[in-house]
Amino acid sequence: MNTKVNLQEKLSQFSDYWSPRTVSQLNDYDIMVVKVKDEFQWHKHEDTDDFFLVLSGHLTIQLRDRDIELNPGDLFVVPRGVEHCPRAEEETHLLLIEPTGTPNTGDVNTAAPRKEL
Amino acid sequence: MNTKVNLQEKLSQFSDYWSPRTVSQLNDYDIMVVKVKDEFQWHKHEDTDDFFLVLSGHLTIQLRDRDIELNPGDLFVVPRGVEHCPRAEEETHLLLIEPTGTPNTGDVNTAAPRKEL
Repeated sequence: MNTKVNLQEKLSQFSDYWSPRTVSQLNDYDIMVVKVKDEFQWHKHEDTDDFFLVLSGHLTIQLRDRDIELNPGDLFVVPRGVEHCPRAEEETHLLLIEPTGTPNTGDVNTAAPRKEL
Repeated sequence: MNTKVNLQEKLSQFSDYWSPRTVSQLNDYDIMVVKVKDEFQWHKHEDTDDFFLVLSGHLTIQLRDRDIELNPGDLFVVPRGVEHCPRAEEETHLLLIEPTGTPNTGDVNTAAPRKEL
């Protein structure tokens, strides 16, 4: 992966939702792009924070006590252990960063498989 | 830092070059924005990869054997131990991610002080 990555070019290569593609790595972290629409599921990560940067569209990160509304250029880091449920009314594109192997659902049994692109 | 961060709003708050501002944290990593112009200095990080995402402008990351040319939406991760020297002809805005405490020059004696914003 020792080349530059254009995020739009990577996003143009797939169309499914809630299935992150790993486009680069930073130490033991995956740098991922993902397309999302509609509601994901409530989950938490006990061992890691969870980084979201909106590239296009609009993302609501529902927390138990409030909603975080993110437009392009907005980022939010969900602290470890905090339950959250992302939701997007329209197709929305995100940059995600998490330690490699972090299950996107918080549960290895239901997580999307790791896919490099 | 348990709030959303708008990258443009953070960038509007300072004007100096090569002085990253930490705008959020992901585990033990700093999420930073920085304005750059002209040439930085050759350096390397023995202990960590180095993440660059161009938000606006154009960045050349000079490596010893080639140049990496980055436009908005392009990212590049400089592998640990690899000498590099960033250069920008015009004012360029970047998102940087590195372990907290990583000296931006590769040398704690010459590094820009850590600044939260």
